[in-house]
Amino acid sequence: MKALRIENGVVDLSEMAIPHRDGEALIRMSVAGICNTDLEIVRGYANFNGTLGHEFVGIVEESPDVEQIGRRVVGEINAGCGVCEDCKRGDSRHCLNRTVLGIHNRDGAFAEYLTLPPRNLLIIPDKISDIQAVFTEPLAAACEILDQVAINKNHKVAVIGDGKLGQLIARVIQTTGCDLILIGKHPAKLELAARDGIKGVASDSLTFKPGDRPDFVIEASGSPSGLKMALDLVRPRGTIILKSTFHGAVELDTSRIVVDEISIVGSRCGRFEKALRMMEQDEVDLGGLITSTYNLTDGVAAMNEAGQSSSMKIILLNKE
Amino acid sequence: MKALRIENGVVDLSEMAIPHRDGEALIRMSVAGICNTDLEIVRGYANFNGTLGHEFVGIVEESPDVEQIGRRVVGEINAGCGVCEDCKRGDSRHCLNRTVLGIHNRDGAFAEYLTLPPRNLLIIPDKISDIQAVFTEPLAAACEILDQVAINKNHKVAVIGDGKLGQLIARVIQTTGCDLILIGKHPAKLELAARDGIKGVASDSLTFKPGDRPDFVIEASGSPSGLKMALDLVRPRGTIILKSTFHGAVELDTSRIVVDEISIVGSRCGRFEKALRMMEQDEVDLGGLITSTYNLTDGVAAMNEAGQSSSMKIILLNKE
Repeated sequence: MKALRIENGVVDLSEMAIPHRDGEALIRMSVAGICNTDLEIVRGYANFNGTLGHEFVGIVEESPDVEQIGRRVVGEINAGCGVCEDCKRGDSRHCLNRTVLGIHNRDGAFAEYLTLPPRNLLIIPDKISDIQAVFTEPLAAACEILDQVAINKNHKVAVIGDGKLGQLIARVIQTTGCDLILIGKHPAKLELAARDGIKGVASDSLTFKPGDRPDFVIEASGSPSGLKMALDLVRPRGTIILKSTFHGAVELDTSRIVVDEISIVGSRCGRFEKALRMMEQDEVDLGGLITSTYNLTDGVAAMNEAGQSSSMKIILLNKE
Repeated sequence: MKALRIENGVVDLSEMAIPHRDGEALIRMSVAGICNTDLEIVRGYANFNGTLGHEFVGIVEESPDVEQIGRRVVGEINAGCGVCEDCKRGDSRHCLNRTVLGIHNRDGAFAEYLTLPPRNLLIIPDKISDIQAVFTEPLAAACEILDQVAINKNHKVAVIGDGKLGQLIARVIQTTGCDLILIGKHPAKLELAARDGIKGVASDSLTFKPGDRPDFVIEASGSPSGLKMALDLVRPRGTIILKSTFHGAVELDTSRIVVDEISIVGSRCGRFEKALRMMEQDEVDLGGLITSTYNLTDGVAAMNEAGQSSSMKIILLNKE
């Protein structure tokens, strides 16, 4: 089968055997999405070699759970050991021995086939199309914020980053009825958010009166400078939610965090059920976020386009 | 009067006029304590010029609140504007226009006299000696942690830093009954904590089994390396409480915060009432924390000793 792989920093389309892992389901990938994390992995993040990709929709071809065979599924990307305290609580996302699809010790979804444990798979409700469902993983990651902090209609919230993740987060946060702004650098992307009723502000024309700062700042810029901007924006005793993962370190004036008693909350993967429910109930509109669609066999070109600053979501299709 | 001042990075004993601020109380300093923040100010932190010092006990000589005259007091270090939303809620600690005793736009307590607004002063209960009461401000800062995060007897907690603040924090956290360790570099300081029943661990002999990491790590080392150590120690989804303020920036792998969904909570000044109550009820033992006592007129020498790594609390007395 064809697989888009990274080996020693080089991305290439390779010919591989169809994968097999004992006890796991075999899924034929239908649609996959390129995430900023995939681009960061190419820059060295997570020190990963193998098949890229963790956002996918597929059809189960084989599974120990025969009910899954032939069904259209999405898959939780963290495969836990199944026996530790975290796994027993149902949270494989923090299992210390987990593998992570296309990120850590597990080949990813930018391939004709992938495997995952049956418990990682969720059947997609009929109402949700493949091209919507491929947003399940990043939408769940956006939803995770509302599982971690209590944002309501009385709060001022700023989202930093008008890219793929920032756009999804803004749409999720918008459902709380809070006073929301999206801070970005790209007029076209801010305009895209504006079409869904989200107020956009260019990062270079940003000013707040001292008493008017946001209670929550969500950092989803994907850039090392985002956290510093978040610290400059958030009100004393406010909360910053950190979403960006990237290769490299950030230089930070931590005294500001102490003196203003700011909280910083790291936020990663979320529960897929909630994301699927939001899409099923039309609570978020994701249609406008796709820039281009490629065949898997053109994956290298797709990754290149995904790296352009003007790009939003780039989709890979596994055509017959 | 004599005042220990910093001007352009140089600490010196100066002759000054007795201070006056309209509407404020005049306090004759009796005892003052040197804090790590005072040492950091000398290194450039907070960009402050003026009289140093914010930990003090004194006698009120003049006050618009005549009930205060002649009374023995401690004083909240943040003097708010009195009219903003924070001040109206009773929280001058986060007023954006506040001055801060010996730290920001207000001469401090290492002088024969200082002034503060009457509302900043708390009368010291008779049972508490001057030499105990001078710990009110740092003890309140330690207590602030328990106002911010819910630590109980089921938690594992690590305090990083066996210095003045770390010792106070460990004694406050110990009252929760949690599984506590104090991590430090100085055998004599760890021994001091051990005498109060606090388990000490040398930072270079520290190991945790993966599933046995602390739920909370409190960073009070006063050093830029402390936060990195805290991130290495805390369990996934755990909380780091940041206490250290210092001059300079920290380099940080923020992806670790995101992937393990760690929370970081900045923590600064606390409520004096709680600290006074703890001392009145003998809940903490602070007697062993004083290394040396100097007269105010020997303040330069006192600051030098405070800067030695073997020192704990250095006290200044304002003798007749």
